[in-house]
Amino acid sequence: MSGWFITFEGPEGAGKSTQVKLLAPWLEAQGREVVLTREPGNGGWLGVEVRRLVLLSEPMSPEAEYLLYSADRAEHVRRVIAPALAAGKVVLCDRYLDSSLAYQGYGRGLDLGWLRAVAVGVTQGLKPHRTFLLDLPPEVGLARFAGRDRLEREPLEFHQRVRAGYLELAKAEPQRFVVLDATQSPEAIQAELRSHLSTLLR
Amino acid sequence: MSGWFITFEGPEGAGKSTQVKLLAPWLEAQGREVVLTREPGNGGWLGVEVRRLVLLSEPMSPEAEYLLYSADRAEHVRRVIAPALAAGKVVLCDRYLDSSLAYQGYGRGLDLGWLRAVAVGVTQGLKPHRTFLLDLPPEVGLARFAGRDRLEREPLEFHQRVRAGYLELAKAEPQRFVVLDATQSPEAIQAELRSHLSTLLR
Repeated sequence: MSGWFITFEGPEGAGKSTQVKLLAPWLEAQGREVVLTREPGNGGWLGVEVRRLVLLSEPMSPEAEYLLYSADRAEHVRRVIAPALAAGKVVLCDRYLDSSLAYQGYGRGLDLGWLRAVAVGVTQGLKPHRTFLLDLPPEVGLARFAGRDRLEREPLEFHQRVRAGYLELAKAEPQRFVVLDATQSPEAIQAELRSHLSTLLR
Repeated sequence: MSGWFITFEGPEGAGKSTQVKLLAPWLEAQGREVVLTREPGNGGWLGVEVRRLVLLSEPMSPEAEYLLYSADRAEHVRRVIAPALAAGKVVLCDRYLDSSLAYQGYGRGLDLGWLRAVAVGVTQGLKPHRTFLLDLPPEVGLARFAGRDRLEREPLEFHQRVRAGYLELAKAEPQRFVVLDATQSPEAIQAELRSHLSTLLR
């Protein structure tokens, strides 16, 4: 794998997709080939189906929810991420496995050991070179992004557990994670991202 | 759990659903409450969706296929099997985890250790009291059931690996598995099943 796998994590409303879109032309101007992608939903035809199912308001066990996200992720890795990395591209991915650990693990209480055991066969060991966590108090994110999907309808305590989980994941892997304060202006966040990536991709 | 969880395994064309349907009234005549169910597809609304997706002829990695079956199984266990067992019923289930081990493991070559690690959070340890393997040479099953789904379009060697896998699973757990010769007449198979179940449920 000769490319770079960069993921963006954090709650809805933190500005992940805005930041990714701002980064792409900047990287391209430096001669990089860039692939913008996201989870869930980019694992081909199956990803589209999975995204539709997880966004429905029908009842579903947290285990089934995680298995669906994982089916999409398995396809996403094989169809999109791994081929792009093999071709030397920079993959900017909005959400990846850390989202499942934060939401289904810390948020819904599924066992992290089980989540990681499932992930072994899903990601085939493909880990991001760098993960930017756009950290935001849940109240702020929810105000920006109210009630649009299954997760946003969860109580505040759920989102507080997710945030604490993300911060714990970041603390456990300080070489991979960069935590950014997402209450800053989009311009300030983008400047921090570019500074980090300039060093990483030098 | 005070009920009985009985599963039926083997290839399409072995007569599993016929046998299950013949067993139900016989058990009911003995005063048992019986639940007939099957996989994939009985995990509520999600099961219906999963069954539709796995039966499509669209390309899908074997890992994604297994994760979809597992999402259905997680719902099936929680909504159908576990509640019926808790109520003391006899659950007759056409296919369960052994199907995944045989088809996705032995057939498609996925790592059995990974399949079992995923299954931990899916089945929550719910294991059949007895599993009847209706063993049949693939040529016979395929002739009875030609080309109706994704699996039936696989080459003969695939079905040979699945059969050998089933027999290996049965050999590893002789207390749970009963292997029946499915080339016999339906009446002869039914007589063997009733004899085994009479002893088990005595």
